[in-house]
Amino acid sequence: MPSTPAKTRYELTYWPIPFRGCFVSYLFAYRNEPLDERDDYEEISDAQELPTRRQAIPFVGPPTLLDRETGQSLSQMPAIVLYVSPDLNLLPDGPFAQATAMKILMDCNDVLMEICRYNGSMMWERDDWIAFRSERLPRWMQVFEEMLRRGHVGAEHVSYSDIAVYALFGNMIRCLPELEPVLLQHAPGVHAHCKRIGAKASLAAFVADQENDYGVTYCGGQIEESIRRMLALDSAITPNR
Amino acid sequence: MPSTPAKTRYELTYWPIPFRGCFVSYLFAYRNEPLDERDDYEEISDAQELPTRRQAIPFVGPPTLLDRETGQSLSQMPAIVLYVSPDLNLLPDGPFAQATAMKILMDCNDVLMEICRYNGSMMWERDDWIAFRSERLPRWMQVFEEMLRRGHVGAEHVSYSDIAVYALFGNMIRCLPELEPVLLQHAPGVHAHCKRIGAKASLAAFVADQENDYGVTYCGGQIEESIRRMLALDSAITPNR
Repeated sequence: MPSTPAKTRYELTYWPIPFRGCFVSYLFAYRNEPLDERDDYEEISDAQELPTRRQAIPFVGPPTLLDRETGQSLSQMPAIVLYVSPDLNLLPDGPFAQATAMKILMDCNDVLMEICRYNGSMMWERDDWIAFRSERLPRWMQVFEEMLRRGHVGAEHVSYSDIAVYALFGNMIRCLPELEPVLLQHAPGVHAHCKRIGAKASLAAFVADQENDYGVTYCGGQIEESIRRMLALDSAITPNR
Repeated sequence: MPSTPAKTRYELTYWPIPFRGCFVSYLFAYRNEPLDERDDYEEISDAQELPTRRQAIPFVGPPTLLDRETGQSLSQMPAIVLYVSPDLNLLPDGPFAQATAMKILMDCNDVLMEICRYNGSMMWERDDWIAFRSERLPRWMQVFEEMLRRGHVGAEHVSYSDIAVYALFGNMIRCLPELEPVLLQHAPGVHAHCKRIGAKASLAAFVADQENDYGVTYCGGQIEESIRRMLALDSAITPNR
Protein backbone atom coordinates (compact mmCIF):
# COMPACT_ATOMS: atom_id res chain seq x y z
CA MET A 1 0.00 0.00 0.00
CA PRO A 2 1.40 3.38 -0.91
CA SER A 3 1.86 5.71 2.01
CA THR A 4 -0.32 8.79 2.16
CA PRO A 5 1.50 11.62 0.41
CA ALA A 6 2.79 14.21 2.86
CA LYS A 7 0.32 17.04 3.10
CA THR A 8 1.39 20.65 3.14
CA ARG A 9 1.23 21.68 6.76
CA TYR A 10 -0.21 25.19 6.49
CA GLU A 11 -3.21 26.54 4.66
CA LEU A 12 -3.63 30.31 4.33
CA THR A 13 -6.98 31.83 3.42
CA TYR A 14 -7.11 35.37 2.09
CA TRP A 15 -8.90 37.46 -0.52
CA PRO A 16 -7.63 37.04 -4.08
CA ILE A 17 -5.10 39.88 -3.76
CA PRO A 18 -1.63 40.01 -2.14
CA PHE A 19 -2.34 43.01 0.17
CA ARG A 20 -2.32 41.66 3.76
CA GLY A 21 -2.00 37.97 2.92
CA CYS A 22 1.40 38.40 1.31
CA PHE A 23 2.92 39.25 4.70
CA VAL A 24 2.45 35.53 5.38
CA SER A 25 2.80 33.94 1.95
CA TYR A 26 6.07 35.75 1.13
CA LEU A 27 7.66 34.18 4.23
CA PHE A 28 7.04 30.71 2.83
CA ALA A 29 8.03 31.78 -0.68
CA TYR A 30 11.27 33.31 0.59
CA ARG A 31 12.24 30.03 2.23
CA ASN A 32 10.82 28.01 -0.67
CA GLU A 33 8.56 26.13 1.72
CA PRO A 34 5.12 24.88 0.65
CA LEU A 35 1.97 26.75 1.60
CA ASP A 36 -1.54 25.97 0.40
CA GLU A 37 -3.55 29.06 -0.38
CA ARG A 38 -7.30 29.50 -0.61
CA ASP A 39 -8.53 32.70 -2.17
CA ASP A 40 -12.15 32.07 -3.10
CA TYR A 41 -14.09 35.25 -2.52
CA GLU A 42 -17.45 33.55 -1.86
CA GLU A 43 -15.96 30.98 0.46
CA ILE A 44 -14.24 33.65 2.53
CA SER A 45 -17.33 35.86 2.63
CA ASP A 46 -19.38 32.89 3.82
CA ALA A 47 -16.82 31.91 6.48
CA GLN A 48 -16.63 35.40 7.89
CA GLU A 49 -20.43 35.59 8.20
CA LEU A 50 -20.72 32.31 10.11
CA PRO A 51 -21.81 32.38 13.75
CA THR A 52 -18.61 32.50 15.80
CA ARG A 53 -19.33 29.05 17.26
CA ARG A 54 -19.02 27.53 13.81
CA GLN A 55 -15.83 29.33 12.80
CA ALA A 56 -12.56 27.40 12.95
CA ILE A 57 -11.25 30.46 14.75
CA PRO A 58 -13.67 33.25 15.75
CA PHE A 59 -12.69 36.07 13.43
CA VAL A 60 -13.92 39.22 11.73
CA GLY A 61 -11.69 39.38 8.65
CA PRO A 62 -9.07 37.27 6.85
CA PRO A 63 -6.29 36.19 6.67
CA THR A 64 -6.78 32.96 8.58
CA LEU A 65 -4.32 30.10 8.88
CA LEU A 66 -5.01 26.41 9.39
CA ASP A 67 -2.24 24.28 10.85
CA ARG A 68 -3.12 20.84 9.49
CA GLU A 69 -0.67 19.17 11.84
CA THR A 70 -2.61 20.29 14.91
CA GLY A 71 -5.99 21.12 13.38
CA GLN A 72 -5.75 24.56 14.99
CA SER A 73 -6.57 27.83 13.28
CA LEU A 74 -5.54 31.43 13.76
CA SER A 75 -6.61 34.83 12.49
CA GLN A 76 -4.90 38.24 12.50
CA MET A 77 -1.90 38.63 10.24
CA PRO A 78 0.66 39.54 12.95
CA ALA A 79 -0.39 36.51 15.02
CA ILE A 80 -0.01 34.23 12.00
CA VAL A 81 3.41 35.69 11.23
CA LEU A 82 4.52 35.09 14.82
CA TYR A 83 3.30 31.51 14.64
CA VAL A 84 4.97 30.44 11.39
CA SER A 85 8.22 32.38 11.64
CA PRO A 86 10.24 30.18 14.04
CA ASP A 87 9.98 27.08 11.82
CA LEU A 88 10.88 29.18 8.78
CA ASN A 89 13.93 30.48 10.66
CA LEU A 90 12.61 34.02 10.25
CA LEU A 91 12.29 35.02 13.90
CA PRO A 92 15.24 37.07 15.15
CA ASP A 93 17.06 36.08 18.34
CA GLY A 94 16.46 37.73 21.66
CA PRO A 95 13.57 39.65 23.24
CA PHE A 96 14.47 43.13 22.00
CA ALA A 97 15.07 42.05 18.40
CA GLN A 98 11.82 40.08 18.48
CA ALA A 99 9.86 43.05 19.84
CA THR A 100 11.49 45.32 17.27
CA ALA A 101 10.44 42.96 14.48
CA MET A 102 6.87 43.22 15.77
CA LYS A 103 7.17 47.03 15.88
CA ILE A 104 8.21 47.01 12.21
CA LEU A 105 5.36 44.66 11.29
CA MET A 106 2.86 46.91 13.09
CA ASP A 107 4.27 49.95 11.30
CA CYS A 108 3.68 48.10 8.00
CA ASN A 109 0.15 47.28 9.09
CA ASP A 110 -0.52 50.92 9.92
CA VAL A 111 0.67 52.06 6.49
CA LEU A 112 -1.64 49.52 4.84
CA MET A 113 -4.53 50.81 6.94
CA GLU A 114 -3.78 54.41 6.01
CA ILE A 115 -3.36 53.92 2.28
CA CYS A 116 -6.55 51.85 1.99
CA ARG A 117 -8.41 54.38 4.18
CA TYR A 118 -9.10 51.83 6.91
CA ASN A 119 -10.28 49.01 4.72
CA GLY A 120 -12.18 51.37 2.48
CA SER A 121 -14.22 53.08 5.23
CA MET A 122 -13.90 56.25 3.23
CA MET A 123 -12.61 57.23 -0.17
CA TRP A 124 -9.67 59.50 -0.84
CA GLU A 125 -10.42 63.17 -1.22
CA ARG A 126 -7.95 65.35 -2.97
CA ASP A 127 -6.65 67.34 0.01
CA ASP A 128 -6.24 64.28 2.20
CA TRP A 129 -4.43 62.39 -0.54
CA ILE A 130 -2.03 65.25 -1.19
CA ALA A 131 -1.24 65.44 2.55
CA PHE A 132 -0.77 61.68 2.63
CA ARG A 133 1.46 61.52 -0.43
CA SER A 134 3.55 64.56 0.40
CA GLU A 135 3.78 64.34 4.20
CA ARG A 136 2.40 61.28 5.94
CA LEU A 137 3.71 58.60 3.57
CA PRO A 138 7.16 60.23 3.37
CA ARG A 139 7.23 60.36 7.15
CA TRP A 140 6.45 56.65 7.35
CA MET A 141 9.14 55.97 4.75
CA GLN A 142 11.65 57.94 6.82
CA VAL A 143 10.74 55.87 9.87
CA PHE A 144 11.57 52.67 7.95
CA GLU A 145 14.70 54.22 6.48
CA GLU A 146 15.96 55.14 9.92
CA MET A 147 15.15 51.66 11.23
CA LEU A 148 17.27 50.33 8.38
CA ARG A 149 20.10 52.81 9.07
CA ARG A 150 20.17 51.57 12.68
CA GLY A 151 20.35 47.97 11.54
CA HIS A 152 16.84 46.88 12.60
CA VAL A 153 15.92 46.26 8.97
CA GLY A 154 18.24 44.44 6.61
CA ALA A 155 20.46 42.65 9.13
CA GLU A 156 22.48 39.67 7.99
CA HIS A 157 20.02 37.12 9.37
CA VAL A 158 16.80 37.76 7.47
CA SER A 159 13.77 38.19 9.71
CA TYR A 160 10.04 38.21 9.05
CA SER A 161 10.17 41.97 9.46
CA ASP A 162 12.64 42.29 6.57
CA ILE A 163 10.18 40.43 4.39
CA ALA A 164 7.32 42.53 5.79
CA VAL A 165 9.08 45.69 4.62
CA TYR A 166 9.31 44.12 1.16
CA ALA A 167 5.66 43.00 1.35
CA LEU A 168 4.70 46.59 2.13
CA PHE A 169 6.87 48.66 -0.17
CA GLY A 170 7.87 46.10 -2.80
CA ASN A 171 4.25 45.28 -3.42
CA MET A 172 3.23 48.94 -3.25
CA ILE A 173 5.64 50.05 -5.97
CA ARG A 174 4.92 46.97 -8.09
CA CYS A 175 1.18 47.66 -8.08
CA LEU A 176 1.35 51.46 -7.84
CA PRO A 177 4.61 52.32 -9.65
CA GLU A 178 3.77 56.03 -9.44
CA LEU A 179 4.87 55.79 -5.79
CA GLU A 180 8.33 54.38 -6.56
CA PRO A 181 9.91 57.87 -6.89
CA VAL A 182 8.47 58.78 -3.47
CA LEU A 183 10.16 55.74 -1.95
CA LEU A 184 13.42 56.47 -3.78
CA GLN A 185 13.38 60.02 -2.51
CA HIS A 186 12.56 59.38 1.14
CA ALA A 187 13.89 55.87 1.74
CA PRO A 188 16.50 54.90 -0.84
CA GLY A 189 17.92 52.27 1.50
CA VAL A 190 14.50 50.68 1.91
CA HIS A 191 14.08 50.70 -1.86
CA ALA A 192 17.40 48.86 -2.24
CA HIS A 193 16.40 46.47 0.55
CA CYS A 194 13.17 45.62 -1.31
CA LYS A 195 15.11 44.93 -4.49
CA ARG A 196 17.45 42.65 -2.54
CA ILE A 197 14.72 40.67 -0.81
CA GLY A 198 12.64 40.48 -3.99
CA ALA A 199 15.62 39.11 -5.92
CA LYS A 200 15.50 35.84 -3.97
CA ALA A 201 14.63 33.38 -6.75
CA SER A 202 11.86 31.47 -4.98
CA LEU A 203 10.17 34.69 -3.88
CA ALA A 204 10.56 36.33 -7.29
CA ALA A 205 8.90 33.30 -8.90
CA PHE A 206 6.07 33.43 -6.37
CA VAL A 207 5.46 37.14 -6.98
CA ALA A 208 5.50 36.54 -10.75
CA ASP A 209 2.86 33.84 -10.27
CA GLN A 210 0.76 36.18 -8.17
CA GLU A 211 1.01 38.89 -10.81
CA ASN A 212 -0.11 36.31 -13.32
CA ASP A 213 -3.17 35.53 -11.19
CA TYR A 214 -4.06 38.95 -9.83
CA GLY A 215 -2.31 41.41 -12.12
CA VAL A 216 -1.37 44.60 -10.31
CA THR A 217 -4.44 44.65 -8.10
CA TYR A 218 -3.39 46.37 -4.89
CA CYS A 219 -6.09 46.49 -2.20
CA GLY A 220 -9.01 45.95 -4.56
CA GLY A 221 -12.50 47.41 -4.61
CA GLN A 222 -13.63 50.99 -4.71
CA ILE A 223 -10.78 52.14 -2.53
CA GLU A 224 -8.24 50.94 -5.11
CA GLU A 225 -10.13 52.89 -7.78
CA SER A 226 -9.95 55.89 -5.48
CA ILE A 227 -6.16 55.53 -5.05
CA ARG A 228 -5.69 55.16 -8.81
CA ARG A 229 -7.85 58.21 -9.48
CA MET A 230 -5.63 60.21 -7.13
CA LEU A 231 -2.45 58.93 -8.79
CA ALA A 232 -3.82 59.84 -12.22
CA LEU A 233 -4.59 63.35 -11.02
CA ASP A 234 -1.08 63.62 -9.54
CA SER A 235 0.43 62.65 -12.91
CA ALA A 236 -1.75 65.14 -14.77
CA ILE A 237 -0.42 67.91 -12.52
CA THR A 238 3.20 66.87 -12.08
CA PRO A 239 4.15 64.55 -14.92
CA ASN A 240 7.67 63.92 -13.63
CA ARG A 241 6.81 63.45 -10.01
CA MET B 1 27.62 57.26 50.97
CA PRO B 2 24.08 56.14 50.37
CA SER B 3 23.67 53.90 47.38
CA THR B 4 21.73 55.25 44.42
CA PRO B 5 18.08 54.25 44.81
CA ALA B 6 17.07 51.55 42.34
CA LYS B 7 15.47 53.13 39.32
CA THR B 8 12.25 51.84 37.85
CA ARG B 9 13.28 49.86 34.80
CA TYR B 10 10.56 50.86 32.32
CA GLU B 11 9.22 54.22 31.28
CA LEU B 12 6.02 54.37 29.23
CA THR B 13 5.09 57.49 27.30
CA TYR B 14 1.51 57.99 26.17
CA TRP B 15 -1.13 60.69 25.88
CA PRO B 16 -2.88 61.64 29.13
CA ILE B 17 -5.68 59.07 28.63
CA PRO B 18 -5.76 55.29 29.25
CA PHE B 19 -6.92 54.32 25.68
CA ARG B 20 -4.01 52.46 24.04
CA GLY B 21 -1.43 53.02 26.78
CA CYS B 22 -3.41 51.04 29.34
CA PHE B 23 -2.74 47.83 27.38
CA VAL B 24 0.80 48.23 28.73
CA SER B 25 0.30 49.97 32.08
CA TYR B 26 -2.38 47.53 33.27
CA LEU B 27 0.12 44.65 32.88
CA PHE B 28 2.43 46.30 35.40
CA ALA B 29 -0.47 47.29 37.64
CA TYR B 30 -1.85 43.74 37.61
CA ARG B 31 1.49 42.37 38.81
CA ASN B 32 2.02 45.34 41.13
CA GLU B 33 5.32 46.10 39.43
CA PRO B 34 6.62 49.65 39.07
CA LEU B 35 6.28 51.57 35.81
CA ASP B 36 7.15 55.21 35.26
CA GLU B 37 4.67 57.01 33.08
CA ARG B 38 5.05 60.21 31.10
CA ASP B 39 1.90 61.78 29.77
CA ASP B 40 2.80 65.33 28.92
CA TYR B 41 0.91 66.31 25.79
CA GLU B 42 3.44 68.91 24.59
CA GLU B 43 6.40 66.66 25.21
CA ILE B 44 4.81 63.83 23.23
CA SER B 45 3.76 66.12 20.38
CA ASP B 46 7.30 67.47 20.19
CA ALA B 47 8.86 63.99 20.25
CA GLN B 48 6.64 62.71 17.49
CA GLU B 49 7.52 65.67 15.25
CA LEU B 50 11.28 65.20 15.64
CA PRO B 51 13.32 64.10 12.62
CA THR B 52 13.51 60.29 12.82
CA ARG B 53 17.28 60.42 13.38
CA ARG B 54 16.71 62.22 16.65
CA GLN B 55 13.96 59.94 17.95
CA ALA B 56 14.89 57.34 20.56
CA ILE B 57 12.94 54.95 18.34
CA PRO B 58 11.70 56.15 14.92
CA PHE B 59 7.95 56.32 15.41
CA VAL B 60 4.78 57.97 14.20
CA GLY B 61 2.56 57.77 17.28
CA PRO B 62 2.79 56.81 20.96
CA PRO B 63 2.94 54.70 23.10
CA THR B 64 6.70 54.38 23.35
CA LEU B 65 8.66 52.46 25.96
CA LEU B 66 12.13 53.13 27.29
CA ASP B 67 14.00 50.23 28.89
CA ARG B 68 16.36 52.05 31.24
CA GLU B 69 18.37 48.90 31.84
CA THR B 70 19.44 48.71 28.20
CA GLY B 71 18.76 52.28 27.05
CA GLN B 72 16.67 50.85 24.20
CA SER B 73 13.29 52.15 23.13
CA LEU B 74 10.29 50.67 21.35
CA SER B 75 7.10 51.92 19.79
CA GLN B 76 3.86 50.15 18.80
CA MET B 77 1.68 48.87 21.60
CA PRO B 78 1.72 45.16 20.59
CA ALA B 79 5.52 45.20 20.34
CA ILE B 80 5.81 46.78 23.79
CA VAL B 81 3.39 44.21 25.24
CA LEU B 82 5.45 41.37 23.75
CA TYR B 83 8.62 42.84 25.20
CA VAL B 84 7.48 43.34 28.79
CA SER B 85 5.22 40.31 29.21
CA PRO B 86 7.79 37.54 29.86
CA ASP B 87 9.31 39.27 32.90
CA LEU B 88 5.82 39.99 34.21
CA ASN B 89 4.97 36.30 33.80
CA LEU B 90 2.13 37.27 31.46
CA LEU B 91 3.23 35.42 28.31
CA PRO B 92 1.45 32.10 27.84
CA ASP B 93 3.45 28.93 27.18
CA GLY B 94 3.88 27.45 23.74
CA PRO B 95 3.80 28.79 20.19
CA PHE B 96 0.06 28.38 19.57
CA ALA B 97 -1.00 29.96 22.85
CA GLN B 98 1.45 32.80 22.23
CA ALA B 99 0.12 33.38 18.73
CA THR B 100 -3.45 33.22 20.02
CA ALA B 101 -2.65 35.85 22.64
CA MET B 102 -1.38 38.09 19.84
CA LYS B 103 -4.55 37.42 17.82
CA ILE B 104 -6.63 38.55 20.80
CA LEU B 105 -4.49 41.66 21.27
CA MET B 106 -4.86 42.52 17.57
CA ASP B 107 -8.62 42.04 17.81
CA CYS B 108 -8.61 44.51 20.72
CA ASN B 109 -6.55 46.92 18.65
CA ASP B 110 -9.01 46.67 15.76
CA VAL B 111 -11.96 47.44 18.04
CA LEU B 112 -10.13 50.52 19.37
CA MET B 113 -9.48 51.64 15.79
CA GLU B 114 -13.11 51.17 14.82
CA ILE B 115 -14.69 52.91 17.80
CA CYS B 116 -12.37 55.93 17.51
CA ARG B 117 -12.92 56.03 13.74
CA TYR B 118 -9.28 55.36 12.95
CA ASN B 119 -7.77 57.83 15.37
CA GLY B 120 -10.42 60.38 14.59
CA SER B 121 -9.97 60.40 10.81
CA MET B 122 -13.69 60.92 10.55
CA MET B 123 -16.53 61.63 12.94
CA TRP B 124 -19.44 59.31 13.64
CA GLU B 125 -22.50 59.78 11.49
CA ARG B 126 -25.78 58.46 12.74
CA ASP B 127 -26.22 55.56 10.31
CA ASP B 128 -22.67 54.33 10.72
CA TRP B 129 -22.89 54.52 14.49
CA ILE B 130 -26.17 52.58 14.58
CA ALA B 131 -24.62 49.87 12.39
CA PHE B 132 -21.56 49.81 14.63
CA ARG B 133 -23.49 49.65 17.88
CA SER B 134 -26.09 47.16 16.71
CA GLU B 135 -24.04 44.90 14.42
CA ARG B 136 -20.30 45.40 14.24
CA LEU B 137 -19.57 45.89 17.95
CA PRO B 138 -21.84 42.95 18.93
CA ARG B 139 -20.04 40.80 16.36
CA TRP B 140 -16.69 41.71 17.87
CA MET B 141 -18.06 40.98 21.34
CA GLN B 142 -19.23 37.57 20.15
CA VAL B 143 -15.76 36.85 18.79
CA PHE B 144 -14.28 37.53 22.23
CA GLU B 145 -17.05 35.58 23.96
CA GLU B 146 -16.37 32.55 21.80
CA MET B 147 -12.62 32.84 22.41
CA LEU B 148 -13.46 32.79 26.12
CA ARG B 149 -15.81 29.83 25.72
CA ARG B 150 -12.99 27.91 24.03
CA GLY B 151 -10.61 28.73 26.86
CA HIS B 152 -8.36 31.17 24.97
CA VAL B 153 -9.46 34.00 27.26
CA GLY B 154 -9.70 33.54 31.02
CA ALA B 155 -7.45 30.50 31.44
CA GLU B 156 -6.03 29.74 34.84
CA HIS B 157 -2.65 31.28 34.07
CA VAL B 158 -3.38 34.95 33.38
CA SER B 159 -1.89 36.18 30.11
CA TYR B 160 -1.35 39.63 28.67
CA SER B 161 -4.30 38.95 26.38
CA ASP B 162 -6.60 38.43 29.39
CA ILE B 163 -5.59 41.85 30.62
CA ALA B 164 -5.96 43.26 27.09
CA VAL B 165 -9.59 42.12 27.03
CA TYR B 166 -10.08 43.98 30.31
CA ALA B 167 -8.21 47.02 28.95
CA LEU B 168 -10.57 47.03 25.98
CA PHE B 169 -13.96 46.29 27.47
CA GLY B 170 -13.39 47.14 31.14
CA ASN B 171 -12.17 50.57 30.18
CA MET B 172 -14.89 50.97 27.53
CA ILE B 173 -17.75 50.35 29.97
CA ARG B 174 -16.08 52.40 32.70
CA CYS B 175 -15.78 55.43 30.41
CA LEU B 176 -18.86 54.80 28.27
CA PRO B 177 -21.25 52.99 30.66
CA GLU B 178 -24.03 53.21 28.06
CA LEU B 179 -22.25 50.32 26.32
CA GLU B 180 -22.29 48.00 29.35
CA PRO B 181 -25.71 46.53 28.46
CA VAL B 182 -24.41 45.76 24.96
CA LEU B 183 -21.50 43.82 26.46
CA LEU B 184 -23.79 42.04 28.94
CA GLN B 185 -26.08 41.03 26.11
CA HIS B 186 -23.51 39.77 23.61
CA ALA B 187 -20.62 38.69 25.80
CA PRO B 188 -21.72 38.04 29.38
CA GLY B 189 -18.69 35.83 29.96
CA VAL B 190 -16.36 38.60 28.84
CA HIS B 191 -18.19 41.01 31.13
CA ALA B 192 -17.62 38.65 34.08
CA HIS B 193 -13.99 38.19 33.01
CA CYS B 194 -13.48 41.97 33.08
CA LYS B 195 -14.97 42.18 36.58
CA ARG B 196 -12.63 39.39 37.71
CA ILE B 197 -9.48 40.91 36.25
CA GLY B 198 -10.45 44.39 37.41
CA ALA B 199 -10.99 43.13 40.96
CA LYS B 200 -7.26 42.48 41.40
CA ALA B 201 -6.42 44.96 44.16
CA SER B 202 -3.29 46.48 42.63
CA LEU B 203 -5.00 46.97 39.26
CA ALA B 204 -8.19 48.35 40.84
CA ALA B 205 -6.09 50.90 42.74
CA PHE B 206 -4.25 51.87 39.55
CA VAL B 207 -7.50 52.34 37.62
CA ALA B 208 -8.92 54.41 40.47
CA ASP B 209 -5.81 56.61 40.31
CA GLN B 210 -6.21 56.99 36.55
CA GLU B 211 -9.85 57.95 36.96
CA ASN B 212 -8.71 60.51 39.49
CA ASP B 213 -6.26 61.96 36.95
CA TYR B 214 -8.22 61.63 33.72
CA GLY B 215 -11.83 61.18 34.78
CA VAL B 216 -13.78 59.08 32.30
CA THR B 217 -11.98 60.42 29.25
CA TYR B 218 -12.03 57.61 26.69
CA CYS B 219 -10.14 58.37 23.47
CA GLY B 220 -10.21 62.16 23.86
CA GLY B 221 -10.62 64.94 21.34
CA GLN B 222 -13.39 65.57 18.86
CA ILE B 223 -13.90 61.88 18.23
CA GLU B 224 -14.80 61.32 21.89
CA GLU B 225 -17.32 64.15 21.63
CA SER B 226 -18.71 62.44 18.56
CA ILE B 227 -19.07 59.10 20.39
CA ARG B 228 -20.77 60.79 23.34
CA ARG B 229 -23.14 62.66 21.02
CA MET B 230 -24.14 59.32 19.48
CA LEU B 231 -24.66 57.73 22.88
CA ALA B 232 -26.82 60.65 23.99
CA LEU B 233 -28.96 60.29 20.88
CA ASP B 234 -29.25 56.53 21.52
CA SER B 235 -30.50 57.23 25.06
CA ALA B 236 -33.01 59.79 23.85
CA ILE B 237 -34.47 57.20 21.50
CA THR B 238 -34.26 54.06 23.61
CA PRO B 239 -33.95 55.04 27.26
CA ASN B 240 -33.65 51.48 28.52
CA ARG B 241 -31.25 50.22 25.94
